Amino acid sequence: MAGSFSYDTLFSENSSDTPLSAVKHAKYDFAVAYPAPETLPMDGLIQALRTAVDSDSGKTAREMAYYPHQLGSQELREYTSAKLASDRGFTVGADEIVLTNGSGEANGLVIQALTNPGDVVLAEDFVYMGTTNQLRRFGADIRGVAIDDGGIIPEELDEQIATLTAQGEKPKYLYTIPEHQNPTGSTLSAERRKAILDVAHRHGMPILEDDCYVDLRFEGETQPAFRTLDDSGIVVYVASFSKLLAPGLRLGYFTATPEVMRRALGFKIGSGPNQFAALAVEGFLRNNLDSHRDSFNPVLRSKRDAMVASLAENFGDTGATWSIPQGGCYVWLTMPETADIAAIRDEVFEQGVGYVAGTNFEADASGRIGKNCARLCFAFESVQKNTEGIALLAQLFKQHGQM
Amino acid sequence: MAGSFSYDTLFSENSSDTPLSAVKHAKYDFAVAYPAPETLPMDGLIQALRTAVDSDSGKTAREMAYYPHQLGSQELREYTSAKLASDRGFTVGADEIVLTNGSGEANGLVIQALTNPGDVVLAEDFVYMGTTNQLRRFGADIRGVAIDDGGIIPEELDEQIATLTAQGEKPKYLYTIPEHQNPTGSTLSAERRKAILDVAHRHGMPILEDDCYVDLRFEGETQPAFRTLDDSGIVVYVASFSKLLAPGLRLGYFTATPEVMRRALGFKIGSGPNQFAALAVEGFLRNNLDSHRDSFNPVLRSKRDAMVASLAENFGDTGATWSIPQGGCYVWLTMPETADIAAIRDEVFEQGVGYVAGTNFEADASGRIGKNCARLCFAFESVQKNTEGIALLAQLFKQHGQM
Repeated sequence: MAGSFSYDTLFSENSSDTPLSAVKHAKYDFAVAYPAPETLPMDGLIQALRTAVDSDSGKTAREMAYYPHQLGSQELREYTSAKLASDRGFTVGADEIVLTNGSGEANGLVIQALTNPGDVVLAEDFVYMGTTNQLRRFGADIRGVAIDDGGIIPEELDEQIATLTAQGEKPKYLYTIPEHQNPTGSTLSAERRKAILDVAHRHGMPILEDDCYVDLRFEGETQPAFRTLDDSGIVVYVASFSKLLAPGLRLGYFTATPEVMRRALGFKIGSGPNQFAALAVEGFLRNNLDSHRDSFNPVLRSKRDAMVASLAENFGDTGATWSIPQGGCYVWLTMPETADIAAIRDEVFEQGVGYVAGTNFEADASGRIGKNCARLCFAFESVQKNTEGIALLAQLFKQHGQM
Repeated sequence: MAGSFSYDTLFSENSSDTPLSAVKHAKYDFAVAYPAPETLPMDGLIQALRTAVDSDSGKTAREMAYYPHQLGSQELREYTSAKLASDRGFTVGADEIVLTNGSGEANGLVIQALTNPGDVVLAEDFVYMGTTNQLRRFGADIRGVAIDDGGIIPEELDEQIATLTAQGEKPKYLYTIPEHQNPTGSTLSAERRKAILDVAHRHGMPILEDDCYVDLRFEGETQPAFRTLDDSGIVVYVASFSKLLAPGLRLGYFTATPEVMRRALGFKIGSGPNQFAALAVEGFLRNNLDSHRDSFNPVLRSKRDAMVASLAENFGDTGATWSIPQGGCYVWLTMPETADIAAIRDEVFEQGVGYVAGTNFEADASGRIGKNCARLCFAFESVQKNTEGIALLAQLFKQHGQM
C-alpha cells in the first residue's frame, strides 16, 4: 500500500502539527546568532582527536564504543570544572556538571524541572527567544523585567516581585543572560548582580543564569557570575561551547544543586551528549583556550567596530540609537518609537539584509515594545559586509518610509 | 551564602528525584550493549573530517558556525537516503529523514507524538528496556506480544489485538526490533513481516520499526524491512549509526509521514544533532561503508562463535538453551524455569561477570517470565574473554545453586 494510512485519531493530545522552520540566509545576514566562522578552530579540533587516538592505546576508541554517561564525557567535565574555577572563580566538581546538547538542552531540562503550567517566570524585557519559546512550551507565564543599558534594574525587579506576589502570582524563578546579553548586548555590573541576589534571596526565587557569551569579551572587564557571588544553590548556571568554539559541536552544560541536577536529568531523552565532539573540545581547549580567545576576540572587535561605524555613518542623524557591546555577537538597534521595522522585516530580508525584529525578544510576547528595535549580529559576516550591509539597511529603511 | 537555598516547593509536579545511574563494568562485561571497540574506525572518521575541511574552501567551517538544521546535517541526510535505497530498498528523500541524538531520541520523539497516558502499546515480550522505559515515562500501558525463536507470531498478535480491542483497550501501536532483536537475537522472516503488516492494517495500528542492528549481519540473509514492504505510512522507521560506527557519535534517525515527522519534531528540545559527528560519519561512510561492514562483521562472528562454543562446553548438559544469532550483539540465554538468575545478578557481577537479567526486558515489567533468562553481549569483549567469561559464569551459577 502507498500513502494511505491515516494517523488522524492516533496523535497524542499534547502534540501539535508545527511547520518545520526553513533556514534561509540573506545576503547580509545579521539575523543569525552565530560566531565568526573564520575563527572556528577546525584544524585544532581535528588535531585534538588525532592526538587522543594516537596517545592512549585504544582507550579513546573504547570509550567511543560506550553509550556516553548521563552527565557526558568525564574528561570534558573535569576540564569544564577547571575552566569554571579559573575563568569564573567558583568551584564545582566534575560530577556537579551536566554536559548537554548545547545550552538549549540545559535550559530545557532545568525549565522542565522548575515549571508547572501557569507558573509566572521572569526574564529580561528583551531576551533570547529560544528560551522564551521553551518557557512557553512548558506553560510558563513569562513577565518581562525592566532593563536599561546596564541590564536588569534591581529596585524595579524587587518591586515587580512584591506586586506579583501580592496578586498571588509569585514568580517561580528569573531567567537572565547577564554577560553580553542576547539581544541587547548589555552586561550587568557586579553591584547589580549582588543587589539582584539579595532580591532573589528575600523572595526565595532561584536565578537561571545563562552565561553562554562570557568567553566573547574583547573590551572592558568580565563581571563575576551570579554563581560566583553565591554558593547557596539559588543560582543554576548554564553555559556553552557553541559561541567559544562552534554551534555545530552541540555542547553546553549546567551546574546546580544535586537535587536540581537529578530532577532536570529526569527529563532527558537518551544518553549523554556526543563523546566524539567532547573529545575534540576537551583536547583542543586544554591546550589552546587562551590562544583561541586571543585570536577570535580581536576579530569580533573589528567586526563590531565596522558595524558600529557604519551605523554612525548611516543612522547618525535619524534619532536611532544602538548599543556598543563589549563582547558577544549583537548590536541592539533602537529606531524612533514611531518606526515599525518588525512589519517590514520580511521584505528587507528579501532585499538583502537580515535582522531579527525586537518583537521576537519581548519576554511576554505582547508586541508592546519591540517593533522599533532589531538585533543585529555582527559576528558572522565579514568586516566589509558589516559595513556594506548596514548602509544597505539604512537605504531600505528609507525606502520603506521608516527613516 | 553557601548551600542553604531550598527548592522544596519549587520543583514541577511532573519532575521526580531519580538517582543517577552509575556506570560500572564487570571484568567480563556481557551486560553492555556496545559494538566491538577494536573495529571502531576512529582513524577513518578523523580522516573524513580532515578531507572535508581541506577540500571545500571554508564551507565546512561555515556550516559548523551554524546551529544545525532541525532535521540535522543535509549531507548526512542525503547519504542516509541513498543508503536506505541501496541497503533497504525503499525511497525517501533527505527531507523525509530526521537525524537525532542516537535512535533513543528518535524513539522518544515518536513515542511522544503517538502516546497519551494510559494508551496500550504492544512490544515483543522481551524487548529493549531503553524503549520500554521511555514508553512508561510517557504513560504507555505496555503489553507483551508472544514471540518464539522467529520473533513475533502474527496469529497470536492478531488475536491479542482483537481481544484487547473487545476489552476497550485497543493498542495504539506496535514497537518492534525485527532484525537481530534486542535482547533475543531473533530476526523476523519476510513472511511474518507481511503477515504482521496485514494485521496492522486490519486494526489500523502503526508499527514503530527499530532497525538499529541491520548492518550487523554476519550470516544468513537480511530480511526486508517493514518499511520496505509497506509504503502506506503505517511504518515509522528508526535506525542508528551507533552500532554500525560508534555509540559515542550519538547519531540516529527516523523517517515517517510528513505529519508524524512534524508532530514528533514538536517535542524536540534544542536544534538538530551535532554537525561535527555528522560530517565525520557522512565522509567516512560515503567511501567506506562496505569495507567497514566487511571488516567488523567477521570480528562479530568470531566473538559470537567463541561465546556460543563456551556456552556449549559449560552449559551443554544443564537444561539451558541459548540463541545463535546471525548478527547483532546479543545471545539470549534461557536457564531451566526453576532458575532465578535475576536474583543473583548483582553478586555475579561483583564476582566478575556482567549480564542483564531477562526481567529487565519484559514488556509489561511483570516479573513473570524473565527471571531464568539473561542477555549476553558478545560484541564488546574479546574472543578470549567471551570464552573465559562464559566458563566463569557457569562456575558462578553453580556456586549460587542455579545449575
